Amino acid sequence: MIERYVETQRQRVDGFLSDYLEQRRERATEKLFDAIEYALASGKRLRPILLLASAEAFHLNAEKMLSTAAAIECFHIYSLIHDDLPAMDNSDFRHGRLSTHKKFDEATAILAGDTLIPLGFELLAQETAKHFLAKHTLTLIQTVAHVLGSHGLTGGQLIDLDFLQNSDHTSDDLALMYRRKTGALIELSVSAPAILLGQARKLERLSRFGRALGLAYQLIDDMLDAAEEAHKPTLLRAWGLEKTRTRAQELTDEAIEAIQPLHSERLEELARYLLRRTY
Amino acid sequence: MIERYVETQRQRVDGFLSDYLEQRRERATEKLFDAIEYALASGKRLRPILLLASAEAFHLNAEKMLSTAAAIECFHIYSLIHDDLPAMDNSDFRHGRLSTHKKFDEATAILAGDTLIPLGFELLAQETAKHFLAKHTLTLIQTVAHVLGSHGLTGGQLIDLDFLQNSDHTSDDLALMYRRKTGALIELSVSAPAILLGQARKLERLSRFGRALGLAYQLIDDMLDAAEEAHKPTLLRAWGLEKTRTRAQELTDEAIEAIQPLHSERLEELARYLLRRTY
Repeated sequence: MIERYVETQRQRVDGFLSDYLEQRRERATEKLFDAIEYALASGKRLRPILLLASAEAFHLNAEKMLSTAAAIECFHIYSLIHDDLPAMDNSDFRHGRLSTHKKFDEATAILAGDTLIPLGFELLAQETAKHFLAKHTLTLIQTVAHVLGSHGLTGGQLIDLDFLQNSDHTSDDLALMYRRKTGALIELSVSAPAILLGQARKLERLSRFGRALGLAYQLIDDMLDAAEEAHKPTLLRAWGLEKTRTRAQELTDEAIEAIQPLHSERLEELARYLLRRTY
Repeated sequence: MIERYVETQRQRVDGFLSDYLEQRRERATEKLFDAIEYALASGKRLRPILLLASAEAFHLNAEKMLSTAAAIECFHIYSLIHDDLPAMDNSDFRHGRLSTHKKFDEATAILAGDTLIPLGFELLAQETAKHFLAKHTLTLIQTVAHVLGSHGLTGGQLIDLDFLQNSDHTSDDLALMYRRKTGALIELSVSAPAILLGQARKLERLSRFGRALGLAYQLIDDMLDAAEEAHKPTLLRAWGLEKTRTRAQELTDEAIEAIQPLHSERLEELARYLLRRTY
C-alpha cells in the first residue's frame, strides 16, 4: 500500500534529519535550530520520498540515499521560509500553522533559510560523497546549484512576484514560472540517483517523469489551495477547473509513460497517489 | 608595490565575475542580475585577493584559481545584502551607496542573496572542479558549507543581532561573533589553495594566518567605522581605541609569524597593507 510506504519513508527521512540537526545544535545559535525544526515540521517530505522511490529503481540501499534526500528537503524548506516573508508572499500561515517569521521573527526566518542552503550542500559534499564517486557527487552539486539559482527556485520566485504586480502574462509564462519554482526541484529529486550513478539514459527518462509530475503536482496544489489563494496568478485561473484537472491527469499519464522501461511500480504508484491526494 | 598588485587582482576577479554573470543573465530574471551586479560593485575583493596571494605560495596559476576566488566573493556579497535588510541591521547605505534593498526592493535583495549562494557553489562544483582532484574540491565545498552555516556566517549574524538587543556579553562573546561573522570566510579564503591541493601542513599555517588576520581586519574596520556605528556592539567599545589598535598590530604580527616557513612575501605585505588601510 503506497500510503504506508510514504509514511515509512517520511519517518526515515525525519529521523535522519533530526539526528543531523541535533549534532549541529549548540547553545549560542539555538534559535536558528528551533526555527529550522519548526519549519521542517510543515513539510510532507514529498521530494525525499520521490528520491528514495527513484533510488529503488537502481536497487540502491535507502541508507545510502538518506543524506541526499535530506539535503533536498533542506533546500525545499528554505524556499518555503523565504517565500512566506513579508517582502515576498507575505503569508502569515502555512498549512494552518504560523509561518516561520510569524512564529519567531523576520531576522530569524531569513537566517534559518540562509542556514538551510549550506546545510544541504554540506550533506551532499560530506555525507552523500561517502557513497558515490566524487565526480558524480560533484555533478549532483552542480545540478543542485543550478536548480536553486536564477534558472530555478529564485528565478521562479522573482517571476511569480512580477506576475502579482503585472497581470500581463500568458499561460506559457505561468508554466515557465511553475517549472522553475516547483518543477525543477521535483525533477531533481527524481533524477538524483541516476546522476549519482552516472546513468545518462535512465537520467533522461527520470527527468521527463519528474518534469511532467512536477507540473501535475503544482496543478493539483492550485486546485487544493484555490480558496485561500484566489489572488495568485495560477494556471487554474488561466485554464479553469476542468482543463486543469484534465491536464493533471494527462501529465500523470505522460510521467508514467516516460519511465515504462524502468519497471518502477513504486514511482508509478507514487505518481497516481499524488494525483488523488487531497491536501 | 602592493597597491598595484591589489588593483590588478581586483580587476581580474571582476572581469571573471562579470563574464560569468553575463552568461547567466536572461530577460525573465534581469532584475536579479542587476541587483547582484549593483551589490558586487560595493565590494573591495579583499577575500579573492587574499586567496590569489595564497595561491602564489603554491605556485598556482591565478587562472586556475579565479573561479574559487569569485565564489568566495559571491558568498561575501550575499552576506552583505542580507545583513543590510530592514529585519537585520536595517542599513540604508553601504560605503556611501544605497544598500541593495533600498536601490531595488526587499524581495529582490533577498532573492539576489539567495541566488548568490548557489552561484558560488556552482562555480566551485563546475569550474574549480576542472583544475583540482574531485575529492579535494568536495572537501573545499564541505568547508565552505560549514563556514556559511550556523558555525560561521549565519550563526555569527544571529549572535550579533542578539547582542544588539541584549548588552550582557563579554569580549570573549564578541570575539566568537567576529570569528564567525567575518573571520571564518577570511580564514577560508587564505586556506582554500591548501585545501584544493590537499596540503595539510601548509593548511594549518594558513589557517592560523587567516584567523589572526581576520580578527585584525575586523578591529581595523571597527576603528574606521566608529563614527557611523556607535550603536553596534564591538570590541572597540569593549576595549577602547588604544587597546584595539595595539591588538590589531599584534594580530598582524602573529599572522605573519604563522606563515614564516611559507616564505610568502605577498601575504606578508598584504597583512601589513590591511593594517594601514584607511577605508
